[in-house]
Amino acid sequence: MKRKLKMGMIGGGKNAFIGAVHRIAANIDGLIELHCGAFSADPVLSKASGVDLFLPDEKCYGSYEEMIKTESTLEKGKRMDFVSIVTPNFAHFAPAMMALDYGFNVVIDKPITLSLNEAKKLQQKVEETGLILCLTHTYSAYPMVKQAKKMVEDKCFGEIRKIMVEYPQGWLSTLSEKDNKQASWRTDPAKSGISGCMGDIGTHAAQLAEYISGLKITKICADINTIVKGRQLDDDGNVLLKFNNGANGILVASQIAAGEENALKIKVYGEKGGLEWHQMEPNTLLVKWLNEPAQIYRSGNLYLSSTASFNTRTPSGHPEGYLEAFANLYKNFALTLSAKLEGTAPTADMLDFPGAEAGVRGMAFIENVIASGKSDQKWLDFKI
Amino acid sequence: MKRKLKMGMIGGGKNAFIGAVHRIAANIDGLIELHCGAFSADPVLSKASGVDLFLPDEKCYGSYEEMIKTESTLEKGKRMDFVSIVTPNFAHFAPAMMALDYGFNVVIDKPITLSLNEAKKLQQKVEETGLILCLTHTYSAYPMVKQAKKMVEDKCFGEIRKIMVEYPQGWLSTLSEKDNKQASWRTDPAKSGISGCMGDIGTHAAQLAEYISGLKITKICADINTIVKGRQLDDDGNVLLKFNNGANGILVASQIAAGEENALKIKVYGEKGGLEWHQMEPNTLLVKWLNEPAQIYRSGNLYLSSTASFNTRTPSGHPEGYLEAFANLYKNFALTLSAKLEGTAPTADMLDFPGAEAGVRGMAFIENVIASGKSDQKWLDFKI
Amino acid sequence: MKRKLKMGMIGGGKNAFIGAVHRIAANIDGLIELHCGAFSADPVLSKASGVDLFLPDEKCYGSYEEMIKTESTLEKGKRMDFVSIVTPNFAHFAPAMMALDYGFNVVIDKPITLSLNEAKKLQQKVEETGLILCLTHTYSAYPMVKQAKKMVEDKCFGEIRKIMVEYPQGWLSTLSEKDNKQASWRTDPAKSGISGCMGDIGTHAAQLAEYISGLKITKICADINTIVKGRQLDDDGNVLLKFNNGANGILVASQIAAGEENALKIKVYGEKGGLEWHQMEPNTLLVKWLNEPAQIYRSGNLYLSSTASFNTRTPSGHPEGYLEAFANLYKNFALTLSAKLEGTAPTADMLDFPGAEAGVRGMAFIENVIASGKSDQKWLDFKI
Amino acid sequence: MKRKLKMGMIGGGKNAFIGAVHRIAANIDGLIELHCGAFSADPVLSKASGVDLFLPDEKCYGSYEEMIKTESTLEKGKRMDFVSIVTPNFAHFAPAMMALDYGFNVVIDKPITLSLNEAKKLQQKVEETGLILCLTHTYSAYPMVKQAKKMVEDKCFGEIRKIMVEYPQGWLSTLSEKDNKQASWRTDPAKSGISGCMGDIGTHAAQLAEYISGLKITKICADINTIVKGRQLDDDGNVLLKFNNGANGILVASQIAAGEENALKIKVYGEKGGLEWHQMEPNTLLVKWLNEPAQIYRSGNLYLSSTASFNTRTPSGHPEGYLEAFANLYKNFALTLSAKLEGTAPTADMLDFPGAEAGVRGMAFIENVIASGKSDQKWLDFKI
Repeated sequence: MKRKLKMGMIGGGKNAFIGAVHRIAANIDGLIELHCGAFSADPVLSKASGVDLFLPDEKCYGSYEEMIKTESTLEKGKRMDFVSIVTPNFAHFAPAMMALDYGFNVVIDKPITLSLNEAKKLQQKVEETGLILCLTHTYSAYPMVKQAKKMVEDKCFGEIRKIMVEYPQGWLSTLSEKDNKQASWRTDPAKSGISGCMGDIGTHAAQLAEYISGLKITKICADINTIVKGRQLDDDGNVLLKFNNGANGILVASQIAAGEENALKIKVYGEKGGLEWHQMEPNTLLVKWLNEPAQIYRSGNLYLSSTASFNTRTPSGHPEGYLEAFANLYKNFALTLSAKLEGTAPTADMLDFPGAEAGVRGMAFIENVIASGKSDQKWLDFKI
Repeated sequence: MKRKLKMGMIGGGKNAFIGAVHRIAANIDGLIELHCGAFSADPVLSKASGVDLFLPDEKCYGSYEEMIKTESTLEKGKRMDFVSIVTPNFAHFAPAMMALDYGFNVVIDKPITLSLNEAKKLQQKVEETGLILCLTHTYSAYPMVKQAKKMVEDKCFGEIRKIMVEYPQGWLSTLSEKDNKQASWRTDPAKSGISGCMGDIGTHAAQLAEYISGLKITKICADINTIVKGRQLDDDGNVLLKFNNGANGILVASQIAAGEENALKIKVYGEKGGLEWHQMEPNTLLVKWLNEPAQIYRSGNLYLSSTASFNTRTPSGHPEGYLEAFANLYKNFALTLSAKLEGTAPTADMLDFPGAEAGVRGMAFIENVIASGKSDQKWLDFKI
Repeated sequence: MKRKLKMGMIGGGKNAFIGAVHRIAANIDGLIELHCGAFSADPVLSKASGVDLFLPDEKCYGSYEEMIKTESTLEKGKRMDFVSIVTPNFAHFAPAMMALDYGFNVVIDKPITLSLNEAKKLQQKVEETGLILCLTHTYSAYPMVKQAKKMVEDKCFGEIRKIMVEYPQGWLSTLSEKDNKQASWRTDPAKSGISGCMGDIGTHAAQLAEYISGLKITKICADINTIVKGRQLDDDGNVLLKFNNGANGILVASQIAAGEENALKIKVYGEKGGLEWHQMEPNTLLVKWLNEPAQIYRSGNLYLSSTASFNTRTPSGHPEGYLEAFANLYKNFALTLSAKLEGTAPTADMLDFPGAEAGVRGMAFIENVIASGKSDQKWLDFKI
Repeated sequence: MKRKLKMGMIGGGKNAFIGAVHRIAANIDGLIELHCGAFSADPVLSKASGVDLFLPDEKCYGSYEEMIKTESTLEKGKRMDFVSIVTPNFAHFAPAMMALDYGFNVVIDKPITLSLNEAKKLQQKVEETGLILCLTHTYSAYPMVKQAKKMVEDKCFGEIRKIMVEYPQGWLSTLSEKDNKQASWRTDPAKSGISGCMGDIGTHAAQLAEYISGLKITKICADINTIVKGRQLDDDGNVLLKFNNGANGILVASQIAAGEENALKIKVYGEKGGLEWHQMEPNTLLVKWLNEPAQIYRSGNLYLSSTASFNTRTPSGHPEGYLEAFANLYKNFALTLSAKLEGTAPTADMLDFPGAEAGVRGMAFIENVIASGKSDQKWLDFKI
């Protein structure tokens, strides 16, 4: 195939935060073009959003149903290749199912759905259709995170014993639900689901811990809090973890950590050493050793794994960031999809993006952590 | 009083780690002189240790009992003013009680005793005798920790909502009990008590959290682990906390965090901002604000509280460290004792060192956290 | 205007470093589309490069002359709007002049030309034609650099007294000219000009110092070195500076600082405080005050200047990097050009990109610094 | 010898800064006792200062001449073993010469004298008498600086090519001469000598560069500035350097870098890598490698050189600071002196403190750098 892939966006109209991020991420590598969109449930707003994006009028649909149906009538190569779903959580499941039913591949923001049950159905649909779904867990797409995963996989640190992941933000420190569009839907159970903080950012932390370590959470003991008076969902929580190899862990997620920006950090310890990564300085991976000096691994260097390099665009010392990590998801998805369209086999590096299974585990995390928060029992088994 | 205070040391013979630290701390400000010692249970080793410290032979006692009895027969001003107990935990209680019985003030390493019960008895003895006891919780004696406490006290951050304290070390990552003297006694229940890691460093973390926040732990839920096979006591743990104002917290202590040195860190969050302090870079206090740039408070500057300045010896940019923090304990203890000997009132700054009450809370922390670790119940009330 | 601007690229074929960076930068905001290219002096390679970029065959020209001539015959809106020149230095001047002569706007990599004389001619041509030229001094396009400039401009620090800028890299620590394409042309006087290190990175450092401070270099005293034996051009240098307000400065640029990546750092000091910025952690601006705590300004926060915000795409804590800074140049250039095409007035923020004048100053820096390096006289006036 | 060495202090009365630092440094290791003092030129103040230090009245002398003469009449072991001279620069030479003439060893603050000529005479006197002189260049006494020196010496980085040392302070940003005792004498030519900033801190930077690299400065080109109006001596300067192996360097010292504390930093680059050390975080040494991850060497670890360990008192992660570095000077001086008194040979580690030669080089640095600052000639040979 020697053409760009065509993206149809669902959600992401004017003033939406994550929609703009998805578009930049899709733009960066020049592999994808914005083909059409149903940018808003309001057809007028959808059209207006499309104009700003230089789309012709007929490619700005009034609803996702219309877009999917209409595009499906076009011939291959002229119609969209995939949808990108960037709506709030409650509006993920229906368009994703419909897109798959009509034969379109799917990129979808996390958490994958509103409930674990929906997630399982979506996973089943993906399996049945054989189509590709990419879930945008951005943080596991940073090159130094991939380096970290590789070093754990290679047993550089021996068996993993302990994982500490924390994700403090401060932007919900006050009751800003009325004034802030992002705050509004993310704290509304009807739109966000049964969890606020744990669904929004706790899932990222859990996914990152599992991604790097290659382990699975098996037991949790959660302290889930709603700190700001008047808020409907949790805005803070601390969780004890057990992993399938016996390692223990701690996960903290908070949106009332006043003064914090987006301070996701992870530390993983094995028998011989460990590693530490901070999302806000993402080009550095600190590698620690028992009785030897710690090392500073930096993105863009030749000593990194080929997977880290595959997910990097600039030489060392030229920092990449959040948008490039996000772009790695789109790039890997696009290369996998292109390979499929061309009838070739995607490489392991291309296939390295989260899919429906990660989505199911994320929803399971939400449901288990909220259940544990309400329970007097210390440890709950992590159930899917 | 215009004389140095006379210190009699119990423990701290050749090759002891913490005894040397206590001596440096007592030396720094020139307020205290080493007067005598029972440096070892072995009289020969005790004498030999004294020679290296330039003590005359007759001031190197063969046992603490002999030292306390003999010194008590000397006239005031010629005899020791206080004992400094730097033995392993199991050998704290008896000499401390005897010293107090004979009228000597006491400096004592933490944890204060082998059990909560002993700690309570010691606290009662201190109260009965009216003598002074100083417990060497070093980390709360750093000037920037005192600045942190002051800012919380002044409600700079509003009500405190969340505390995260972690204390990872890596030095017990392997079963080094046979080869390493420090490892040997600290992992031996007979010498260390019912807890290893939580007693050795978890207590520091808990004390620091309570010291800075001015809050008290009221509930705990602990995951206590012995990671290294063959070890007798815990070497790792994660603890969920509740404080008396409703704030939540998380405390992590580990001695199997391979590659970590002595990485005590604390973050405290209130309604309007928060603070962060790292023991390994102790002259910096990071102060965070909601919607304003974070600030870097640095020791030795004129903008700090008078208490922080009182506990600092050098101008800004001339780093102080662990030994100076330790010396703050000895200095404040010495100034308080001198004031008492002179019949004057010590200032609040002089009185700012941990005493028997902190010792009791520390032992209660150990007993509660170990009990919680064994319990299937989620939250245990923090009992004293 | 509601269409993307059309870019014609000169240089940037397969394996070129900076061409790929320019394309990503042009892609990010969806304001520009790659319309055509003369990617290589070798027509076959030019075509092959275009295929990878999904360009139709007829838009991959065999030479820039062909491209400019052919495109100029197309009607407006169908032809390219501007050329982007990403060739080595020696191949900047001719295509830029020709493009301007044929009415095309120009984006051009730095340094602008091979000599000061060429730069002056190009500046004159830009003035005569009234067309727009954007010179890609990436580092001054970071949002926190713009914040720094604003704070200096607002006299937050009083009069500026001292500027320290350093730019150490290590990638030319050995004689890699034979093996490394980048090293090869950058150390070849025929392709790079009279200077290696000072032309390649010294110019960035000088431009950054002048951009942030709003000052002009008036005198220099340079120690220019070729450290690696066999190299034809300078690979290291230290320069004393005087600025037009009497401030002094120091500029260090080196490509033999083994172990450094791309460690551009600048410190500016005024009467009341100063600021510090590190390119490798670009989302942080350290702001220092006399007798007050330093502050950590971070990109994406509401307390920043509107100009900083205009050049940022993500909320605080979501790091941006080198590619986003590069994209700011393209974005501002594109918005300015679009405004012109639509007949509206570009805002000050849109106009904030380096042009021909910065190019002339950059070339003057190179010629002056090399002259000073050869002189026994201490201070040379900075001549243009 | 099994006794503490006896120190007689010259200067360092109430409110003096550096005198208190010297006393703490002498106290820390318990090897030295304060025996007597001439703390002030004012006999009343001298006595009062002695009382605070618990000295008996007869050991508080009214002048250094009286102290030296009187002590010299006492028998060995009862009289002072050495003097510690902590007066302003102008009052170094006379007491040092007299002390040596009377057979007393000397510790002396830097810069060693008021002029190069005095320094040479003092060096000659030291050689003639065979007595020991220790010059307190604190910064080269940090353990990680010693580690750096060792790694350079061992050719870990190959030949050294470039040294960057900077020492910015901000405390003289305004004309505080009237209000601040330290500012007053340090900016007064009669008390400080021909240089302010370069004498006070530039000498530290130059000594550190030569100490770590093992190289000697051979040429300098200096820009010396007096920024604050009304000030009598330089408060800022930038210096180009050449070393005896052909390496180049840059030295910046400033006391008008508003917002800086005591930010001495050094970077040394060789053929294969380099190192970086910051005085304000002194327990870390950053070691950089060509094409390999940088390493973080930390004080107190077993992987360090024996010399670094010899100059460290605490285990890794227990930070040491400025006072411990200062104490290393006193410790090494004391061990060397004790060895001499006992008739044994001091080890290389004991002998590792700056002496008269470093003092002469420091004064030569001052005189050369000031001469260069006034010269129109670019490079001046470094003359002694």
